Amino acid sequence: MRGLGRQLVVEMWDCARRVDDPSRLRAALEEAVRRAGATLIDVQVHPFNPHGASGMALLAESHISFHTWPELGYVALDVFTCGERVEPERAVEVFRDLFSPRQVSVVEIRRGIRP
Amino acid sequence: MRGLGRQLVVEMWDCARRVDDPSRLRAALEEAVRRAGATLIDVQVHPFNPHGASGMALLAESHISFHTWPELGYVALDVFTCGERVEPERAVEVFRDLFSPRQVSVVEIRRGIRP
Repeated sequence: MRGLGRQLVVEMWDCARRVDDPSRLRAALEEAVRRAGATLIDVQVHPFNPHGASGMALLAESHISFHTWPELGYVALDVFTCGERVEPERAVEVFRDLFSPRQVSVVEIRRGIRP
Repeated sequence: MRGLGRQLVVEMWDCARRVDDPSRLRAALEEAVRRAGATLIDVQVHPFNPHGASGMALLAESHISFHTWPELGYVALDVFTCGERVEPERAVEVFRDLFSPRQVSVVEIRRGIRP
């Protein structure tokens, strides 16, 4: 792996499924951590009023975060992992399954490449 | 603002100051939130054994995260904010002051631009 970490910057648009329930969002976040083969340290999910939610999982291998704008059908997801054994793409799959976006872009950033 | 949010992806290398104390890291994270004009929802700082630490602040306006590799003099920082009133650059300043990196790169990603 070139660099210390891989960060997937994921934009999900036209989400066919709206998920507001914090316990479902938390379960998805925990499932994403498991699926990626990462180790969970802490997880937080916070619903906003009148809509939207944010969640963050602190990992032994960096972090996963999401922020939802259900009124726009948009979700911003980041999966930042370090180490060779972790597969951040697997975490993205969990959120694709959860929200069913019609449009997805994934940009990978390599972190920790010494200049 | 074009898009729903701004994400500053910050790479800090050759950090002259090593900070391991979780309470100092937490205070910096909280100060970064204040300085950016953001609203803190939750903050987590986790030290790793034998070295390094991760921290995340969940904000009403998205999130701030950092991951440190003190043995390499490297810190990965992300500041993701939405809304017009928040200044993510101000949060970056707090971490520059904390770690004194000799090399810094900041790449801005606009999030939530409808394709």
